[in-house]
Amino acid sequence: MRNLSIENLTRRAEILIEAMPYIHKHRDSIAVIKYGGAAMIDADLKRAVIQDIVLMHQVGIQFVLVHGGGKEITDLLGQLGAKTRFVNGQRVTDSQALDAAEMVLSGRLNGEIVAALNTSGARAVGISGKGGTLLRARPLEADEDLGFVGDVERVDPTIVQVLTGNGFIPVVSPLGLGADGQTYNINADTAALRIAVEVKARKLIFLSDIPGILRDRENPESVIGTIHREEIEPLIAEGVIQGGMIPKARAAASALDVCEKVHILDGRRPHSLLLELFTDEGIGTQIVR
Amino acid sequence: MRNLSIENLTRRAEILIEAMPYIHKHRDSIAVIKYGGAAMIDADLKRAVIQDIVLMHQVGIQFVLVHGGGKEITDLLGQLGAKTRFVNGQRVTDSQALDAAEMVLSGRLNGEIVAALNTSGARAVGISGKGGTLLRARPLEADEDLGFVGDVERVDPTIVQVLTGNGFIPVVSPLGLGADGQTYNINADTAALRIAVEVKARKLIFLSDIPGILRDRENPESVIGTIHREEIEPLIAEGVIQGGMIPKARAAASALDVCEKVHILDGRRPHSLLLELFTDEGIGTQIVR
Amino acid sequence: MRNLSIENLTRRAEILIEAMPYIHKHRDSIAVIKYGGAAMIDADLKRAVIQDIVLMHQVGIQFVLVHGGGKEITDLLGQLGAKTRFVNGQRVTDSQALDAAEMVLSGRLNGEIVAALNTSGARAVGISGKGGTLLRARPLEADEDLGFVGDVERVDPTIVQVLTGNGFIPVVSPLGLGADGQTYNINADTAALRIAVEVKARKLIFLSDIPGILRDRENPESVIGTIHREEIEPLIAEGVIQGGMIPKARAAASALDVCEKVHILDGRRPHSLLLELFTDEGIGTQIVR
Amino acid sequence: MRNLSIENLTRRAEILIEAMPYIHKHRDSIAVIKYGGAAMIDADLKRAVIQDIVLMHQVGIQFVLVHGGGKEITDLLGQLGAKTRFVNGQRVTDSQALDAAEMVLSGRLNGEIVAALNTSGARAVGISGKGGTLLRARPLEADEDLGFVGDVERVDPTIVQVLTGNGFIPVVSPLGLGADGQTYNINADTAALRIAVEVKARKLIFLSDIPGILRDRENPESVIGTIHREEIEPLIAEGVIQGGMIPKARAAASALDVCEKVHILDGRRPHSLLLELFTDEGIGTQIVR
Amino acid sequence: MRNLSIENLTRRAEILIEAMPYIHKHRDSIAVIKYGGAAMIDADLKRAVIQDIVLMHQVGIQFVLVHGGGKEITDLLGQLGAKTRFVNGQRVTDSQALDAAEMVLSGRLNGEIVAALNTSGARAVGISGKGGTLLRARPLEADEDLGFVGDVERVDPTIVQVLTGNGFIPVVSPLGLGADGQTYNINADTAALRIAVEVKARKLIFLSDIPGILRDRENPESVIGTIHREEIEPLIAEGVIQGGMIPKARAAASALDVCEKVHILDGRRPHSLLLELFTDEGIGTQIVR
Amino acid sequence: MRNLSIENLTRRAEILIEAMPYIHKHRDSIAVIKYGGAAMIDADLKRAVIQDIVLMHQVGIQFVLVHGGGKEITDLLGQLGAKTRFVNGQRVTDSQALDAAEMVLSGRLNGEIVAALNTSGARAVGISGKGGTLLRARPLEADEDLGFVGDVERVDPTIVQVLTGNGFIPVVSPLGLGADGQTYNINADTAALRIAVEVKARKLIFLSDIPGILRDRENPESVIGTIHREEIEPLIAEGVIQGGMIPKARAAASALDVCEKVHILDGRRPHSLLLELFTDEGIGTQIVR
Repeated sequence: MRNLSIENLTRRAEILIEAMPYIHKHRDSIAVIKYGGAAMIDADLKRAVIQDIVLMHQVGIQFVLVHGGGKEITDLLGQLGAKTRFVNGQRVTDSQALDAAEMVLSGRLNGEIVAALNTSGARAVGISGKGGTLLRARPLEADEDLGFVGDVERVDPTIVQVLTGNGFIPVVSPLGLGADGQTYNINADTAALRIAVEVKARKLIFLSDIPGILRDRENPESVIGTIHREEIEPLIAEGVIQGGMIPKARAAASALDVCEKVHILDGRRPHSLLLELFTDEGIGTQIVR
Repeated sequence: MRNLSIENLTRRAEILIEAMPYIHKHRDSIAVIKYGGAAMIDADLKRAVIQDIVLMHQVGIQFVLVHGGGKEITDLLGQLGAKTRFVNGQRVTDSQALDAAEMVLSGRLNGEIVAALNTSGARAVGISGKGGTLLRARPLEADEDLGFVGDVERVDPTIVQVLTGNGFIPVVSPLGLGADGQTYNINADTAALRIAVEVKARKLIFLSDIPGILRDRENPESVIGTIHREEIEPLIAEGVIQGGMIPKARAAASALDVCEKVHILDGRRPHSLLLELFTDEGIGTQIVR
Repeated sequence: MRNLSIENLTRRAEILIEAMPYIHKHRDSIAVIKYGGAAMIDADLKRAVIQDIVLMHQVGIQFVLVHGGGKEITDLLGQLGAKTRFVNGQRVTDSQALDAAEMVLSGRLNGEIVAALNTSGARAVGISGKGGTLLRARPLEADEDLGFVGDVERVDPTIVQVLTGNGFIPVVSPLGLGADGQTYNINADTAALRIAVEVKARKLIFLSDIPGILRDRENPESVIGTIHREEIEPLIAEGVIQGGMIPKARAAASALDVCEKVHILDGRRPHSLLLELFTDEGIGTQIVR
Repeated sequence: MRNLSIENLTRRAEILIEAMPYIHKHRDSIAVIKYGGAAMIDADLKRAVIQDIVLMHQVGIQFVLVHGGGKEITDLLGQLGAKTRFVNGQRVTDSQALDAAEMVLSGRLNGEIVAALNTSGARAVGISGKGGTLLRARPLEADEDLGFVGDVERVDPTIVQVLTGNGFIPVVSPLGLGADGQTYNINADTAALRIAVEVKARKLIFLSDIPGILRDRENPESVIGTIHREEIEPLIAEGVIQGGMIPKARAAASALDVCEKVHILDGRRPHSLLLELFTDEGIGTQIVR
Repeated sequence: MRNLSIENLTRRAEILIEAMPYIHKHRDSIAVIKYGGAAMIDADLKRAVIQDIVLMHQVGIQFVLVHGGGKEITDLLGQLGAKTRFVNGQRVTDSQALDAAEMVLSGRLNGEIVAALNTSGARAVGISGKGGTLLRARPLEADEDLGFVGDVERVDPTIVQVLTGNGFIPVVSPLGLGADGQTYNINADTAALRIAVEVKARKLIFLSDIPGILRDRENPESVIGTIHREEIEPLIAEGVIQGGMIPKARAAASALDVCEKVHILDGRRPHSLLLELFTDEGIGTQIVR
Repeated sequence: MRNLSIENLTRRAEILIEAMPYIHKHRDSIAVIKYGGAAMIDADLKRAVIQDIVLMHQVGIQFVLVHGGGKEITDLLGQLGAKTRFVNGQRVTDSQALDAAEMVLSGRLNGEIVAALNTSGARAVGISGKGGTLLRARPLEADEDLGFVGDVERVDPTIVQVLTGNGFIPVVSPLGLGADGQTYNINADTAALRIAVEVKARKLIFLSDIPGILRDRENPESVIGTIHREEIEPLIAEGVIQGGMIPKARAAASALDVCEKVHILDGRRPHSLLLELFTDEGIGTQIVR
């Protein structure tokens, strides 16, 4: 060390000079991350995400993680000899499936993420959406009875604010509590979005296994870098945004009343979180006002 | 109403007059409850315990609940086709058993207690002992390898203090985090005791299915109301305190350096918590300095 | 002890469970008590009232006591060889009578109540309505010259708020200060009512020697438990409310703009204060919005 | 106006320049005044004292007034047909005399001072030494039974600190409360001294009808301006300090552990308080460390 | 000492009694002083001004000093061999002149005032109007190019408030910072006035070498004591206010939206500041609403 | 944008990941910079230094700048026709030279730095060491009379703490105030060092025109990266540290009682400040405990 070339030092200085205004700008702001996909499974990617979050938290960004875990629930149900039935992509959730979901989500997966963060130097706390009645739930309206699949009726952000305000990173499993005391399983994207709005997050980030919104679905290089809110409906009409992305894009648009930006980041690229937040380079698709 | 007899009114007044100094005294103090046994299973008893906690919390006592769940873990392992082996009363905990324990404790049981408290008007938050690294664990020393059975190396009470200080009731599942990121299953009595000491609880209460410490094991009426700390070793020598009660009694004695009283309450008697805290009548055994 | 029957314990628990929501609800609220009659004279009743106030103050209710003392003033004037003349129930107050009133009210009676409260563990402070110019007075308008009988022109609640906010119980003698520096004797009911409104008391309680407002004046069992504000004028029209109770009832009605309830309690029943505030049973008459 | 001579303006400037460091120095400090003698009776002197206190309070000095009233008590007892007996200068105080003392002190005189201060723009509050148990009393030890003449057992300065800290001037009548609830009449000099020490007053001022401590008792011009603490015993030995002044001087000496200065001011000279506190000119005798 | 005559003592008391309400009234208010003329040059006058400010600051008035220094700038430029050209009373300020101005104002004169204040016991801090961008400047509009003569575009009072709020006396040299980083020399009267408005000063005081506004310019005894805001335009029309006094008087009028009074004091009279603020006697002219 | 190569993105991420712990570590710590040499003169270097400071201040480091200006003082004296005489490297400072020093330092140079910082988005405030009596001075002891060359007698860091604590960057010119009111010119290195110790700076940085401490004075590549405190005397003995560097090195060693590190940075390398503080690469020499 102490022997880098002048060019190299200059390059370093430039990158830091570029990053510092972002660090300043994002300090004390909240980023809600919907955490899932490869970044939650692949060991190297997971390590990179955890490292990014811990470091960015240290320089002052407050994070809230909301995770899903559909595949792992199906696995446990399989081990218990139960079959899983899906209706329009929603798991039909009877009492046994609900138990399995709560055990996998609030028990195993939540515990894994908290362990990884805390072992890397953060102070994370796993909670369920039932804690502090963060997520007040009601049965999701659907054509067919989906059992204990819930929708978010109301968010009480107090517990999340108390935790972030005291230096903790809340890691939230997407379960909700009905007025009658019944537990409901809630879609993690929905939970993340509703929480982001209520805690007035500056950013809502979906970390998943897609490169972003593609102009040409066949071409992964055709990621649309920035979409303005009012372009969403036209893109749906054109068929560029389609399928399961439609409700997510519409929800993102509505979140922009409160959040500054919604990001769809490729969790398969290492450090995509860090680069998105602290450099001029955008990764994936950002939806802006 | 408005037509009770004078005697009845006088009786009411007396009970309230007896209770108020306790309400005053315990306000803003912390009670750590090891919650288990019938009071966690029987619907009526459970309702009474939850009601007591919610009401006493409202008049100013701060509670921390630590729960176990050994039987339910064994059940889940059975459903998954795994056998449970015990060595000296400790479950030998391999990777599958640990997963099952975390799912049952942090997932199902913790979620049930939180749902019941919050539905009754409290603001409870379920956390695992890994959250905020509340419980730093290391492998429990034993003659035989017990796997991922942990001992408490260190307690960081911050997360519990933040929650109680903001009006929440923490409900803690007894898992701990090793320095290497490994999760450990911890005995709930131990966890409750160590937490009680670190949060400077005024009271540590074991709510279980025994009437208290009995002078004559055959006679459930022979509960010893009060035991002074220095009587414990003699009682062990006499054989009055024996078996699994020995380490618990010794631990209670050491907790008295910080806590004012340790109670062994009969969870099978409705409202034993309330009556113990707010009346002159003692229920079960209290261990005092 | 430690040997009550199950029924007895259950009964205790029920009474406490009934009381706790009231304790919670009234915490940090203010109750202004007009203190007079038998409860201020009879030793046993006095002891019960004092005990109730001290205990309820300990669990968080803030009290302000306003007392009268007409009879004792007349007695002192008698000893000093002066005759007391009344016009429409108002004492004609010349300079000597005013001196006697101030000496009896701010000196003897106030000092007695403060001594009783402080000896029972409270921190009471006796003040006159002149202190901090709590009661700004002007001559009471009347057909005939009443001398130094005053009406409340304005209330400055600061001194009362400073005292209650620092854990003291103000005990107020009903004297007021004119803009010109003249002292006036003020009706204690009026003083209590005006103070209750200005300190935003939740409850204003008249503790006196009547069982409440009676539907049939001849029948002390005919107490009307609850009167809604808009029923007062009809009850006056019917002749149920009559005489000196008319202005008191109208004043109570107007206080309800700020206070939640006005109570007319029978000070001759022991612990009527405690039972009124902390149980479902009402004692006497409550006037509500 | 706007036409004073240069000399006159310069003189004014000099006086103000002399006063300002005192104003600065005494701000937020406490002066306890034992108020009595002509300054409490003569209308002009009284007006001057009240004006001084109100103005000095406005520029930041906190005052506590303690008043006596022996003569007025004797008068009232006379009117009531009772004889007053004195033993060694102490009134033998039976129950009737105690009542009379409390009525005169806490009722009439205290009320008069409060009225005068508040009418001049201050915010004074009259309290008895029983209020907030400011003065915990016990029977004064004496050769003969003096009845309810009390000595100060303990001072709880909280009520005085709360009042001064909130901008009020406490005016204290010298009554105390025994542990058993009995009221005692206390010497006002003693009360002032004990309170001054407990509230950490910077100055303790006795405002009375003597010009100060005289070197030659026959010559009122022979006031000793300054006495150092260690000169007191020699002055007693010399006979310069004698009679009732001996205990007062010794008490003053002991107060100097806490107070900076003790003053014996001539209340018959107008504005002696103001001139003592805010100019280089001393009035009367000051006792210093 | 201790031997002044009664008349003398009474006179002292009267002056103090007159002063105290002013001391009380002005405490914690801000006075902005434009400091210049003889009071900044003559050693005795300077000493008197500094003493007044230090003492008045001690009893609670917050001061902000703004000074000029035109003559000294011209002197330095002369020493450096540069000629100064004035257009309509404004110095044409090229780069060299600007350098000289900043050196004289922020360097020498500012340092002198700070040294004098701090040596007299105050805690003064010299800042330039560029510090904390207190004065955002732009080129002054004029018929002819005046170079770096600036006008105040905007005031950011934060630095002044932070200093006064922490017990410091800011001494401000009248330089401003342009948006482009250029320094500008600003008229000290203008700077004082704009700062007075933004810090919500109660008083704005011009300390200069004129006795006030004269009714008859030839007669220095004809000072107009008080001018009401609405009299200014008539006085201009009458020719009483003329020349350089016109913009100053108009600016004073506009400052009265925020400030209570604007004073034109004769800095050649010793202690004019003290006498103006703390006595009923006015010195010079006051302009009021 | 949005099209950097993976390698490039990874490189960026690595640099940021390296920097973030430093950003976290230095937040809210104070760095005192002695600012001088090329970095204060060369336009490009100056711009880079200012940019570094502004950005690092934004992410939470508090800065105090202390600047010199010997050459510019000599220039001004030359223009004024005065000769400068040096004794042992110290300017003999008569009254004219002192005036020139104060004008150049507190006037021109200080104003230039403040303007540059504030135009770049910081909130800097220029003060002299006389402000708030930051630097209490006395004549420097020397063999020959040096005139108004001062040494630091005492530092009162309050003004610097108030400014940094309120988000300002103090820029300090090295003048001091004698107890007698005399101004003294102080060596800027000494001033920086004494201030660093009193404000408990974590870092003291000398930004000058040398690459660091060289092992071989002839070889600018021979910079010693790290020197431990106890190596300084041996290095002096070896002749590696010599001349004017000896007192500076010894002073640095003594500062390490409080400061964590003292840096000698090459101000001729762009962004040396930023790279030193936020990367693993060291620039110049660091002296550590």
